[in-house]
Parts: sequence; C-alpha cells; structure tokens
Amino acid sequence: MEESEQLLTQRSEGKKPNGHCRWSTRSLDSKAVEDFRRRLKYFFMNPCEKYRAKGRKPWKLMLQIWKIVIITAQLVLFGLSNEMMATFKEDNLMTFEHLFLKGFKDHWQGNYALYTKADLYDHIYHYTNLQNLTLENLAYGKIDGKYTPLSVCQLLYKNSTVDPERDSFYIDPHIDEGTEIRPAEGLVFLCRTFRTLLVSVNINFTLKTINLQTVRHHELPDCYGFHIKIIFDNCAHSGKIKVGVKNDVQIHECKDYNVKASGKIDYLVLIVLFSCIQEFKIFFQTHFNKLVTWSERMEFVNGWCIFINISDTLTITGSVIKIGIQTKFLTNYDVCSILLGTATMLVWIGVIRYLGYFKKYNILILTLRAAFPNVIRFCCCAAMIYLGYCFCGWIVLGPYHDKFRTFDKVTECLFSLINGDDMFATFLNMRDKSYMVWLFSRIYLYTFTSLFIYMVLSLFIALITDTYETIKHHQKDSEPATLLHAFIEEVPESA
Amino acid sequence: MEESEQLLTQRSEGKKPNGHCRWSTRSLDSKAVEDFRRRLKYFFMNPCEKYRAKGRKPWKLMLQIWKIVIITAQLVLFGLSNEMMATFKEDNLMTFEHLFLKGFKDHWQGNYALYTKADLYDHIYHYTNLQNLTLENLAYGKIDGKYTPLSVCQLLYKNSTVDPERDSFYIDPHIDEGTEIRPAEGLVFLCRTFRTLLVSVNINFTLKTINLQTVRHHELPDCYGFHIKIIFDNCAHSGKIKVGVKNDVQIHECKDYNVKASGKIDYLVLIVLFSCIQEFKIFFQTHFNKLVTWSERMEFVNGWCIFINISDTLTITGSVIKIGIQTKFLTNYDVCSILLGTATMLVWIGVIRYLGYFKKYNILILTLRAAFPNVIRFCCCAAMIYLGYCFCGWIVLGPYHDKFRTFDKVTECLFSLINGDDMFATFLNMRDKSYMVWLFSRIYLYTFTSLFIYMVLSLFIALITDTYETIKHHQKDSEPATLLHAFIEEVPESA
Amino acid sequence: MEESEQLLTQRSEGKKPNGHCRWSTRSLDSKAVEDFRRRLKYFFMNPCEKYRAKGRKPWKLMLQIWKIVIITAQLVLFGLSNEMMATFKEDNLMTFEHLFLKGFKDHWQGNYALYTKADLYDHIYHYTNLQNLTLENLAYGKIDGKYTPLSVCQLLYKNSTVDPERDSFYIDPHIDEGTEIRPAEGLVFLCRTFRTLLVSVNINFTLKTINLQTVRHHELPDCYGFHIKIIFDNCAHSGKIKVGVKNDVQIHECKDYNVKASGKIDYLVLIVLFSCIQEFKIFFQTHFNKLVTWSERMEFVNGWCIFINISDTLTITGSVIKIGIQTKFLTNYDVCSILLGTATMLVWIGVIRYLGYFKKYNILILTLRAAFPNVIRFCCCAAMIYLGYCFCGWIVLGPYHDKFRTFDKVTECLFSLINGDDMFATFLNMRDKSYMVWLFSRIYLYTFTSLFIYMVLSLFIALITDTYETIKHHQKDSEPATLLHAFIEEVPESA
Amino acid sequence: MEESEQLLTQRSEGKKPNGHCRWSTRSLDSKAVEDFRRRLKYFFMNPCEKYRAKGRKPWKLMLQIWKIVIITAQLVLFGLSNEMMATFKEDNLMTFEHLFLKGFKDHWQGNYALYTKADLYDHIYHYTNLQNLTLENLAYGKIDGKYTPLSVCQLLYKNSTVDPERDSFYIDPHIDEGTEIRPAEGLVFLCRTFRTLLVSVNINFTLKTINLQTVRHHELPDCYGFHIKIIFDNCAHSGKIKVGVKNDVQIHECKDYNVKASGKIDYLVLIVLFSCIQEFKIFFQTHFNKLVTWSERMEFVNGWCIFINISDTLTITGSVIKIGIQTKFLTNYDVCSILLGTATMLVWIGVIRYLGYFKKYNILILTLRAAFPNVIRFCCCAAMIYLGYCFCGWIVLGPYHDKFRTFDKVTECLFSLINGDDMFATFLNMRDKSYMVWLFSRIYLYTFTSLFIYMVLSLFIALITDTYETIKHHQKDSEPATLLHAFIEEVPESA
Repeated sequence: MEESEQLLTQRSEGKKPNGHCRWSTRSLDSKAVEDFRRRLKYFFMNPCEKYRAKGRKPWKLMLQIWKIVIITAQLVLFGLSNEMMATFKEDNLMTFEHLFLKGFKDHWQGNYALYTKADLYDHIYHYTNLQNLTLENLAYGKIDGKYTPLSVCQLLYKNSTVDPERDSFYIDPHIDEGTEIRPAEGLVFLCRTFRTLLVSVNINFTLKTINLQTVRHHELPDCYGFHIKIIFDNCAHSGKIKVGVKNDVQIHECKDYNVKASGKIDYLVLIVLFSCIQEFKIFFQTHFNKLVTWSERMEFVNGWCIFINISDTLTITGSVIKIGIQTKFLTNYDVCSILLGTATMLVWIGVIRYLGYFKKYNILILTLRAAFPNVIRFCCCAAMIYLGYCFCGWIVLGPYHDKFRTFDKVTECLFSLINGDDMFATFLNMRDKSYMVWLFSRIYLYTFTSLFIYMVLSLFIALITDTYETIKHHQKDSEPATLLHAFIEEVPESA
Repeated sequence: MEESEQLLTQRSEGKKPNGHCRWSTRSLDSKAVEDFRRRLKYFFMNPCEKYRAKGRKPWKLMLQIWKIVIITAQLVLFGLSNEMMATFKEDNLMTFEHLFLKGFKDHWQGNYALYTKADLYDHIYHYTNLQNLTLENLAYGKIDGKYTPLSVCQLLYKNSTVDPERDSFYIDPHIDEGTEIRPAEGLVFLCRTFRTLLVSVNINFTLKTINLQTVRHHELPDCYGFHIKIIFDNCAHSGKIKVGVKNDVQIHECKDYNVKASGKIDYLVLIVLFSCIQEFKIFFQTHFNKLVTWSERMEFVNGWCIFINISDTLTITGSVIKIGIQTKFLTNYDVCSILLGTATMLVWIGVIRYLGYFKKYNILILTLRAAFPNVIRFCCCAAMIYLGYCFCGWIVLGPYHDKFRTFDKVTECLFSLINGDDMFATFLNMRDKSYMVWLFSRIYLYTFTSLFIYMVLSLFIALITDTYETIKHHQKDSEPATLLHAFIEEVPESA
Repeated sequence: MEESEQLLTQRSEGKKPNGHCRWSTRSLDSKAVEDFRRRLKYFFMNPCEKYRAKGRKPWKLMLQIWKIVIITAQLVLFGLSNEMMATFKEDNLMTFEHLFLKGFKDHWQGNYALYTKADLYDHIYHYTNLQNLTLENLAYGKIDGKYTPLSVCQLLYKNSTVDPERDSFYIDPHIDEGTEIRPAEGLVFLCRTFRTLLVSVNINFTLKTINLQTVRHHELPDCYGFHIKIIFDNCAHSGKIKVGVKNDVQIHECKDYNVKASGKIDYLVLIVLFSCIQEFKIFFQTHFNKLVTWSERMEFVNGWCIFINISDTLTITGSVIKIGIQTKFLTNYDVCSILLGTATMLVWIGVIRYLGYFKKYNILILTLRAAFPNVIRFCCCAAMIYLGYCFCGWIVLGPYHDKFRTFDKVTECLFSLINGDDMFATFLNMRDKSYMVWLFSRIYLYTFTSLFIYMVLSLFIALITDTYETIKHHQKDSEPATLLHAFIEEVPESA
Repeated sequence: MEESEQLLTQRSEGKKPNGHCRWSTRSLDSKAVEDFRRRLKYFFMNPCEKYRAKGRKPWKLMLQIWKIVIITAQLVLFGLSNEMMATFKEDNLMTFEHLFLKGFKDHWQGNYALYTKADLYDHIYHYTNLQNLTLENLAYGKIDGKYTPLSVCQLLYKNSTVDPERDSFYIDPHIDEGTEIRPAEGLVFLCRTFRTLLVSVNINFTLKTINLQTVRHHELPDCYGFHIKIIFDNCAHSGKIKVGVKNDVQIHECKDYNVKASGKIDYLVLIVLFSCIQEFKIFFQTHFNKLVTWSERMEFVNGWCIFINISDTLTITGSVIKIGIQTKFLTNYDVCSILLGTATMLVWIGVIRYLGYFKKYNILILTLRAAFPNVIRFCCCAAMIYLGYCFCGWIVLGPYHDKFRTFDKVTECLFSLINGDDMFATFLNMRDKSYMVWLFSRIYLYTFTSLFIYMVLSLFIALITDTYETIKHHQKDSEPATLLHAFIEEVPESA
C-alpha cells in the first residue's frame, strides 16, 4: 500500500523514478533505447492491441483458452474415474467393517471400542466362511492353490506380571509377537492364553475382488487386493480396547483375461502434454532469445509468467503420472490428483491475467497485490498472538476437550471459531470440569473471540478498505501502474 | 459507481451531458420539445405529484396495492393446500419405508444398506399381507378385479462368472431383466437362483389411498396412486447393497363418487387474472399509444416496467396452471408453485419502486443499482479463483470427503464456508487419510478461507461502502439522478 | 444522520435554530425567560453538576442504583424458584413419556410415530399398575375415594367406508367421540372395533405428585396435578400415526397439611414495589408540579423518562403478580416472568443514561440514536425483498424442506442464514427432489445469500460507519447536541 | 484514539507537550540533562541500533529468543505427558461407565436416567466380579489383605410418608445416611427396603490400576487409585432418577518397585528456571541500579517490561510445580498447566515487541493499543444492554430452553449468537411452548440479533477503521509516538 503510494507521489512531484535511472544507465545509444522501448511496449501490449498494432493473431491467448478447456476436460475425466475407484474402495471397507466387526454400526465408526474380555473373545471368534456371507464377489487371497494366511498377531509383554492390588509390577519391555494361522484351521486354538499384558491383537488377511463397474463404460475391470488389518488395541492398558480396521489396497490388471487394454491411454493426455510443451517453447522463444543478458531476462519474467510456468510444469508431471496410472505402472492416485488439481486451479486463476487487460476488472487483483505486503506483516503479528493462544489452549484445555486434544486440532478449532463456528458447543463441552479449568476456559474463549473477531478481523477490513481506496484513487489519475510501464510511457515525452 | 460519478462530475463542470444532445437533435421545434418535455415530466411524476398536478387519482398505485394483496392471498391459499398434499405424500412414503424395509430407522434414511446375502433374502421375503398391517386406508392397486402385478425385477449379467481368487472373470455385458409376480402368488419362487453377478433387484408395486383430510375443509378427497419401486442396488459389486425406495404419485379424482367438484375454481384466481390483464392494458395504453416510434417506446420502458410485466406474466401463467390443477387436468404442482412464488417475490420487491418516491428510502436501491456493475466485474474475477478452488478441491478431496464428492457439492460447501459454516467439522472429517492428502487439505482450506473471508469479503464491504458514500454525496447536492431527469429539469432553465 | 447534520450545519452558519423560535415566542418577559432557562439548565444537569451547583445529593441516581440492585435480586430469586418448578415439570413429563409410551427413546421425541395396527394395540394396552412401577411419588387422581377416570377417547367417522382399491368412499363428516373407562376396569374391552376411519385415540388421565424439593429450602412443598393426554393422531390417514404426550399442570397447596405458608411473601417484593412507586412520585413531582400546561409537561418527558416509567410500570405489575403466585392465587408464571424480565432488561439498559453523562461513553447510544431513522428506512426496503423471498421460499420449497415448512420457519431460517447459520445443511437437505425444484432451490439460496450477506449487510456497515463519523466529527466541535440544549446554552450570549 | 490525536495535534502546533515540562523541571543542570537524555535514548534503542551505536551484542534479544524456544519445548513435553495421563484417566472412566452402568451407550452420557423401580434394582445388582470381566489390569483396592469397602450409601428421609393421592405428606427433613457393604458380601441384603422417600443411592468403591504406557518411553509407570462414586439421584422426586459416575484419582509411585526415579527431573526445567531468573537479574540491573528514586524507576517500567516479568513469574512458579509433579510431591496438573500455558502465551505475544522495532510491523499493536480505551468504554455501554438481555432471557426462556437454563449458559449462548452460531436451532427448540412465550422468544431473538450483529458489530468495525486511519495518518508524518520519545528527540534541536 505504502509502496505503491510512495512511488506514485514521487512521480506526481516530477521526480524521476529510480527504476528509470536504472534502465537508462545501460542504454546510452538513443536509437537502441528507442528500439528497446518499442519492443518493450509491444511486449506489454494486450492481445487486442498487438493485433491492432502489428496484425498479429493472439496465438498465446487462444492457446491459453484451449489449455483451460482441455486441462479442465482431462481433470473431469480423471475425477470421474478417480471417484468411482474411491467409492469402490470405501464401500468395500464399509463392507469389511460390517462383516468382520460384530454389531458394527455406521455412526461413530472412529470410536468403536470393547470393554470386557468376553466381548473381545466374541469378536475374535467372529470370522466365519466368507463365501456364504456375501454375494460372491469377495474371496480370500490364494497362493499356489492355498489360501494366504489369516495371521493373528498377538503383541504382549513376555513374562510380565502386574498386580494393581499391591501397586506392584514386573515388566520386561520386550514385546513378543504372535503366531499365524490360516482360515481353514479356524481360530479355535487361539485365545486360551490371554495373559495380563496383552498389548494388541492384530488380525491380518487378504481379500480379493474385481471392480466390475467399468464393464459398463466398456473398459476392462481391475482386480483389487485388500490387505486388511483388524486391530484390537490395548496399548493404553486402560480397560478400553479400541477396535480399528485398516486396509491397504493394491490395484492390478486381472490375470486370466487376455484382451489388451487398448485405447486406455486417452488422447486427451497427449493433447494436454503437447499444449503445455508448446507453451513452454513459446515462452522461451519470447523471453530468452530476443534479450541479451541473464539479468535482462529475469526482469521480464513477471509474476504471471512464473505462475503459468508452474502450472504447466504441474500439468506435465501430473499427466505423465496419469499415463502411468492408466497403464497400471503406477497407483499413486493421490499425487496425480494433487498435481492435476493444483495445475487446474492455477490455470483458472491465470484467467484473471486476461481479465486484467480490461481496466475495470483489475480492481480485485490490484487490491490483493497492493494489500499483500501489509497483510503479511499484519498476519505475522497476529500469528504471534494466535500461536500463543494455541499453545496455551492445547496445554490447559487439551486434556478436557476433544477439540483441543492435539496441537493441529487447536489451530483448526481456533481458526474455525474466528470464522463463525459453533461456539456454544465449544463452550458446552468444557462443562463439568474442575472449577479452575472451567473458569480458565471461559476467560480464554471470551478473550480470544473478542480479540480476534472484533479487533483483528475489523482491522483486516480497515486494511483492505484503505488499500482499495488508494488503488481507486490512483486508477482515476490514470498514471502508469508500475515503473516499467512508466519507462515505456515516459520516454516519448523526452524524445 | 464510476459511471454515475463521471456523469455527475461532467454535469457539475457545466458540460452538456451526451444524453441531452441525443434528445435535442430529434426535437427541433421548440414547442414540440416543450410539449414533449411536459408529457415526460408528467410521466415521471410520482402518484402524489400527479394527483396534485392534474387531480388524477392514483389508479395505478391502488391497482398495485390491490394486486399485492390478492396475489399474496392466492399464494397463501395455494401454499396451504400444496403443503397438505406434500405432507400426505411424505407421510405415506415414510409409512412405506417402515412397512416394506425391515428394521428401518428414521435417521440416515439415505444411507440404508445391506451387506450379507441373508439380509437380502430377509428383506425380499418381507412383503406380507398389507391389509392386516395398517389401518385399512391402503390397498394394492387392482385392474379388472385382479391385483396389479407386484413385479420383481432382477437385473443380472447373463452367463457370467467371476473368480476373484484367481483374478479371472468372464462377463457378457448384456443385462438380463427379470420376471413379474403377483402378491397373491407370494415371493417364494424367487431367490433360489441369486447368481454371482446380480446387478440389482427392483420390486415394483402400486398402492392406492385416499386423502381424507380435505373432508374437513368441505372439499372432495382426492385419490392417490403410488407407484413404488424398492431398489436393492448392487451395481458397484462392492459387497454393499444400497437400499432405496422411490415413489411416483398420481393424483386423480375418485371414481365412485358422483358429486361434482363445484366451487373448486376459486374466484380469487379470476380476480388475480383480471387485475393482471387490466394492468397490462394500462401499461400498453400509457406507453405505446402516446409515443410514435418504436425506439421512443423502448426508451420509456424502464427497469421497473419490465420488472412488473415479468411479474404479471408469471402470475397469469401460474394462475392458469393453478386452475388446471384444481380441475384435475394438470398435476404439476412444482411448476405452478415456482411461477406463483417468483411472481409474488417480484410483486413484493416491486413495492420498493413506490418507496423510492420518498427520497430517503431510496438509498438501498440506489446503492445496489450503482454498485451492481462493479460487483459483477468483481465477481467475475473472484469466480475464476473460486472455480479454480472448486475443481482442485473436487479432484483431490472428493474421494476422501463427503462434502467434496460431487462438483456441485463442492461449490455449495465452499460457498457455505465463506458464509460462516461449521469449519471444524469440515477439517475434522478429513482426518485419517494419507498424510499428503491431509496436508493438502489443510493448506487448501486455510488458504481458501483466508483469501475469501479476509480479503474478498472485506473488499466487498469496501466496494459497497465506497458506492454508498458516492451516492450519499450526490444525493445531498440534489442533482437529478439520471440523464432523462436531467433533460426534464434542465430545459426550463434554458427556456 | 442527515437530521443531526442539517441541524448542526445550520447552527454553524449562524442561523437561529427553529427550536429557539418556538421557545422564545411563548416567553416574552425576559426575567421569566431567564428563570425558566435556569430551571431548564438545572433540569438537564447530571448528578455531579447538580451536587456542585446546589449541593443537592444525587437522590435519583442513588435510587436508580438501589433499584437495579433489588430488582435484579428479586429477579434472581424468582428465576431460581421458577427454574426448580420448570425442571420438576419437565422431568415429570419425561417420566410420563418413558412410562406410558412403549420403547420411548429420548432423541427425536417430537417425531415419535407408529405405522402398524399391531404397534398401536401394543401401545394402548401398555398402561399397567403405576404404583408398582415407580418410586411411589406418583398416584392416579382420586375423587370421593374413586380413581378419576382414565378416559380413552376414540374419534372416528361414523358409518363411513373407504375402499381405496376401487377409488371409492362414503364419509359422514360427523366425528363420533368415544367412551370413558377407569384404570381399575382395564383397557381390555377397548380395541375390538377399530374401524376404517379412526381419526385419533386420546387417552386422558390425571396424575398427582408432590414437589418435595422445597423441603430442603424450608419451604412448604406444593402439590401438582398433571392432566395428561396421550394422542394417537391418525387425522392425516396416511398410515403414519403420530404419538404425542401433552400435559396441563395445576399447582395448589397440599390439603392435609395445616402449617400456613407464613413468610412466603418475601419482603424483597415489597421493597421493589415501594422503590418504584417512590420513583413515580419523584417523577411526577419533578415534571408535573413545576410546569404549568400539559404541552409544557410533554416537552420535558424525554425518551429516558418514558423508558424508566415503562420499566417501573412493568416492575410493579410483575411484582404484584409475583405476590399472587406466592400466595397461590395465581399460577401464570409466564406472564410474571415476561414482565419482570423485561423490566430488569430496561433497568439495565437505563444505566446507559448515566454513563452518557461522561461524554466519551456516549458514542454507542448517540450513534445508535442517530442511525436509527436511516436504519429503519433502510430496513423497510430490505424487508420488502426479504418478504418476497420468504413467500417464494415457503411456497416452492415448503413441501420439500423442513426448514421451509411454515411461514414463520422460513423467516427464521432465512434470518439465520444471513447471520451465519449452517448453509451446507440447508443446501443438502434439498437434494433428491425433482430437478426443477433442485435447480430453483440453488438459484434461490445463492441469490438470497449473495444479496443479503454481501450487499445488504455491507451496506449496514457503511450506514453505521458513516453515522459514527458524523457523530465523532460533531462531538469534537463540542457543539450542543440537541435544540433544547442549544436554547439553554445560547441565551446567555444574547443576554 | 482521541488521546493520541490530541497529543499529536498539540505537537504539530508547536506547543511543548506537558510531558516535556514534567521532565525538565527536575533537571536544571544542562549537562546532567544531556547525560540523562543520552542514557534515555540508549535505553529506548532497539537491539540493532544499540549494536551499531555501542557495539553491544543484543544479549537481551538473544535471551528472549532462547527463552521462547526452551519454554515452548518444556511446554510441549509437559503437554505430551499431561495428555497421556488425561487420556488414561478418561479411558478408565469410560471403562467404568461401561462396566458398572448396565446398557450404557456412549452418546448422551450426561443424560443417563432411569424411570422405574425395576431398572433401579437391576442397576444396583449389576456389580459382579471385576477380575473376570476385564483384561486384568484393574483391581479393587485392598487394605491389610482385605478389600476396601464397596460402600452403598442410601440417603432417605426417615419416618416419612407421602400420599400424593390425598395431597398429604409427612416429612422429617433429617436425611438418614446408609450402610456399607463389602464386595465379597455381595449386594443381596440391600434393596429390600426402598421406602417412599429415597433421596439418592451412592455406590462408592476404589479401583487401582497401573499406567503401563510409560514403559515404552523408558519411564517408570505410575499407580492410579480411582475413587469411584456412582450416584442414583432421586432428589427431585420427579420419577426420573439421574445416574452419574464421578471419580477422583490419586496418582502415586508404585510401592513394590525399587528402581529410583532417576533422571525424572528433566534438565529443561532447570534451564528454563535459570533463564528466567537471569532475565530478572538483567531487568533489575538495567532499571533499578542506574536510576535514583523510586518514581524514576516506575517511569521506565513500561508495559512490555511488566508483561515480560509477569510471564517470567508464571514460568518460574509453573516450573517449580512441574518439578513437584515429576517427583510425585504434587498432583495438581491443572494449576501447573494453567501457569505454564499462560506463561507461554505471554512469551509468544511478547515477540510482537521485537517485531515492533520494524516500523511497518507496528500497525496491529499500535491500533489495538490506541483503540483500547474507546473499545473498553464502548464495551461498557454495550455490556449494559447485553446484561439486560441476559437477565431477561434467563428468567423468561430459562424454563423452556436448554441454552437458557443457567445464567452463564445464557451469556455464552447470546455471545455465540452474535458470533455466528446456529441460530435456527436456537429458534427451533423454543417451539411448542405457550403462545406468549413463543412470541416473546421471537421478539427477543430478532431484536437481540439485529441490535448486536447489525448495529454494535458494525460500530466496532467503524471504531477500528477510524483508529487505523488515525494511526496510519500519524505514522506517515513520522512524528515521535509518545511523550518520552518526544523528549529524547526534541532536546538536541534546542541544544
């Protein structure tokens, strides 16, 4: 804010901007300067003006629009197949939970816990013949005609005794790992010998299934291998045994089907790749061939160019990974979706650059850019107070309130409170604690909310309003917005 | 904002506005100009002034108030009967769910699912004698003394085998459709042959009932035919069989009751129709008979007139459909309610026009109108960033978070977050994913919220505050607000 | 805003304010004027100044502080006993629901419904011997040694048949009311003859209990008579039978206990009454004895006086009702609590008057008062748009969304949305409807939210900011704030 | 705001500030003045400037950074162990609830209640052999080889009869306390004689367990003694018997384990203690040795110093308590966490002091400080209205709405509503009451929300915006910000 203002007040007082001096020192020859200026001027023209000035077709703009269309199209296609895959995985996980956890209910799946020995036995004996249960699209994994082991892993402290009655214990901290059984043999032999210091029981097995949905889209179905781990976690030794189901999934081509995955590399990816590389080429030609020194080059690489190049790089990397996924070499859907998603976001935000050619559409981006340094400085200070509150809230309220249990939860909770989250629920859950903590929690929440919602947020509005008015005021005077533009515009007057 | 400002600064510097020139060129004859001006002036007077100037009764204003009253009355009546109908339909649907889905609970009705073969059999065999169950106001549909078929539709892949153990499958993508049975015959013969690749089981039947509630309001009861479809959907082949109940409803007059539906066309509709058509007539007489050319006509059709005409058109269309519904020719309640609802909304908003005759009440509508172009431009830019975030969020977080599952859900979720939705819940649900996605989701949400709540929303306030001050400043100078008014006011000075 | 501004700009231009003229016309005699002015000046002094000027003790201020203390104390005492009574009633109602509704669960008590004949029978037969169930503090009411009747009221259409299969029906709209039985006789004879057109079954009975909690506070326990009505409501004939429990409660002194309720009229009430009446006296002496005509009197009754008088009137009425409640003549706790509550609120807000004597504390109340006319005007316009949206939302979305079911729910829902309610939930619940309604709901919600949150709310901030700056600007010039003050201050200059 | 403004306008008009005079009167000797000034100037230099001026290393800054690092590190370590302890306690409590309350469900644990005699008997007989139930890490407490008593405490009114049928009762308000039994003897003898006026049944027992988790971190496990009290509370005599579980916990070293708790006093605490005491020393040396009189000393103790000293005091106290906890002398984790948490918060906020040396980072803290007096004054007035609403809401809506049940809940609820809580839910829960209360609740909520969200919050923004602009305006003029600085800067000009 102050930066742009300083610059502009300088100029209105007739002083030469520093930028001008820097440019002029290097170019003594006035003709060369003039030529340089013309090229510069052309460089900064918007597509319309370029077309009018030299009749040049706006290839770059058209390429950009083309890019937005195909990148978004590619993203949508990837999104749809990604979603189908994710839904299939999630539905299967839910099925496993219903099949292998006795009495499982959909709600509060994260809080499933057992409290008595009897319940634990019941749950471990619960694994029966899978084929009779489901609609026959699930099978235990087999290796060499034999089922893959259903391993039950009992973690326990060996040779340890605990006698809470007498406040005495002997523990050998070495944890003993358990045995493996196969589903055919059943789970009978297990569980006779649950000793005092059971740490956890893990049941591992592999299930295989085929995602038949893709048949409808005339694609080949993939085969999925789910490595399931059911964990009965007693490591807190608090009487509450937490039950969790984790699964890893491997996706591979089904074996006994010979039809090749022809046409699976969709041509869209190739078009996207081609467009992006093309753009890279244009960018380098434009920026690096015409200019001489490296420092000159750097001057012209403005924010938007870097922005678009990052976007292109992400797109290319993402598309390459996508090809890998489609040809079953890779399975890291997450990396691919993050790369493609970020790329698409940048491409869309990049449209603002072209909207900015129309003066009145500029206000958002100009204000944001002008306000940015102040906002950052301001946020630094606010962040100190915020961090102070976070640490304090975590340490004091953490043991008594779910939302303050971990440090990142505290930051999220407080951030949400500033932005209008359900405050009464937060207040309410802290009830029924020791009076001192209760009182502290009230002071803590009231001061935090008042400080941030009433003071800091209002100050934010003041900052932005102020910047907006500065921007608007200078836009009216129709002065050139940056030093570079000033140079271009000014010299003809001196000529 | 800048538009109105430019105009007004121009004027205060003594320049003739462009609009004036445009008007004056056509009217060389000064007497004709004067006459034209007088008519114009009269045209723009508010009802009070017109009454004072020519003693004309404010027919239009009275008609408008009359219209608001009767349109709202009609809407309320329609609303009440619509609500009764809707509640009856919804209660019946809920009854069906409780009768035909075993163990159905009210909560999470959208997520009802089965996981084992046994459960599926249980549910399909569940359909018993309806008459013994309920309080005898429901019956299966009959045609020619016979019950309409209770058709059970088994969709499955014919001659297909799947062997997930060996990663092999053979599928004939042709889907085989099932058989029909009648409730008398029971469901016994079914279900012996659930083969591997069951896609879905649909149970269709028709139930008939009579809405007896209207008897109390001395209206004839209507007969309802519910075409119910219970869907056991296994098309994802993930072990989770989703259960859903869909129903179509047909409303018709009951047959064996001979009393005519006398008085069912309420006279209110006719009054509404008459009022609106009358207004149309006045509008056309006022605007189109006194002026000569088409372009002249267009000039005088200002925003409010178009506004009111749209409202009238919607009212007339809606009322005609309403007559159709009341005489049982039509059943599209939805279209009718949308038309009538929108019409009523416009009529109420139209009141602001009359409030605007009092200068101080004008501020809201003037500010909104002046801020509109800037707001739209501003929204264009913000929408680019917003869309970028939407695409990115959908693709990356979609598979892991319910609120990001579909693209329109993403737009709604982000829009809600800006406006103060429960952010912590949104943060929380993304827990327990792969670390990379978890990190991405944090960065995504923090940047999005900060950018939109702190920057964009604050900028909105700056925009509106700025416009408000411009408007207020000019209102004080009591200058005419538009070119047209300027023309009317200015000429007497030159005369 | 403009009002105060106009006034003050007038003054700075040296013009006499109109108010001055009005005053001066009546008082020709300059000595009388001077005297009048002195009295006026004294009248408007704050307590400190009065003390300094004439040594008068600030009786009124002390009375006011005294009033705040005792009115709040009285309120707190009433609140505590009111709360104990309300909790006792609510706990009893909850007990009744658990005892008399089979399988009742705490959650979703408003939505309890039955769907089959069998369930209905079960529920009606459910009433067993109460004494064996509970901890013996509940009894059926008895009259003359006999139990008050447990009346079962069957509402049904007499001689009516409905045949939904054939779309035919015969209804005699006359509703037949049912029979009464006593608990000793059981409910056996009932329920043989549930015919087609059952409208509702109401089970009425009286239970008596004693609120023993007050024994601990050394007060006499009250006897409660609960008239319970259990309603099985089938009036919609939709298969869903809604179940509800309503209870009326009568509180009376227990009969067989002879100790009088001595000391039950607490002296606090009398003190409150005395203080308020005293204040009334002072008010009338101050304002009505010294001045001659009625119009003169009216001039001096400024806002705060009216405010405090309303507060006093409410306090006195409330306190009288409270005495009635404590002596068991009256039981309308609600009226009493509303009167006392509002009175206390006004007394607390009245403190601002005294804070206003310190200039810097004035800003809130001055700004609110100055902004009030503009805010009201502004709200009028906004209310038109708001009402339009309400009607439209009610009619179109009412049948499909719980939050839009009734008109007052719509107003509440939209008002809440503006102020940051959970928007995503509102969006979400409209899913799964016909596409047209779905689309309409999206457009409706997006436009409404954008318009009100971004435009109207921002405009509100602009309004208040503007008023604040006007107020602050004029406060600095230290000009008298109102005409009356101007008159007082100005005359010495002319003298 | 006005304060700083006044000061600065004074100065720009060339007047000597009052502060200057105060200083100069005492220091007649110009050389002493000069010396004093130089020392003052140096005193107010920021670390960079001091280094440049005298080459002094920024020891204090480095000490500060060092302090932040180690205090935060200490806090994190304490937080982690505190969290483990809290989770262990909470999990155990949850286990007790599942073991000792029949049919306990996780949701609505605060609302668990019984309604019939039979249920009460069932629950009291529910206590069986603990060792067979759980995974053997829980035991009843034993003293001298015998189990600690499982005492069942029946509170009841002795010799009292209640006959609600006849509205009569006889109560002896003396409460009789019950008997003790031991788990070995079972609970059989109990419960024959539940008489009419049971007030409550309390079951007390002691459980012992060992927190084995710490073994993994190579720390010694602690022994926990839980004193559990299960309360069946009938004191309201409303038929609803509330069930609650309370537990006190004692943490002590396990007895039969001889390894000393070596290394348990972590050195971090000692470093923290040393750093803080060191800082105290520096502070006293700097501020109290060089200056002569006490009043002089006070002048230089500015806000930040007090701030940091408070922080240090809290840190030292907290660290000492922490040592006590780690050596098992103390168990008040809460006090320790509040002290350490607050200290850490203050240390982090203290960082802003150093950021403030860079002029542009100052804006947040300057604005907050300048706005503070006005905000406080403003809040006083708003608090009056707020308190009025609170009292009124508590008294009128308290009996009908959970959120208004107690006074502190009302304050929280209304505060939350202002800051964007779920308003519709608040509206909704007040449904189904008497019409008058319903209407009152609507008026109450609408007026409250409108007044506070639209008026008061907007005024807040206006206040902050105004202050921000004042601050920014003066910052540009680069005038010294306080009187003290003014003195330092000004004199050289006069010299």
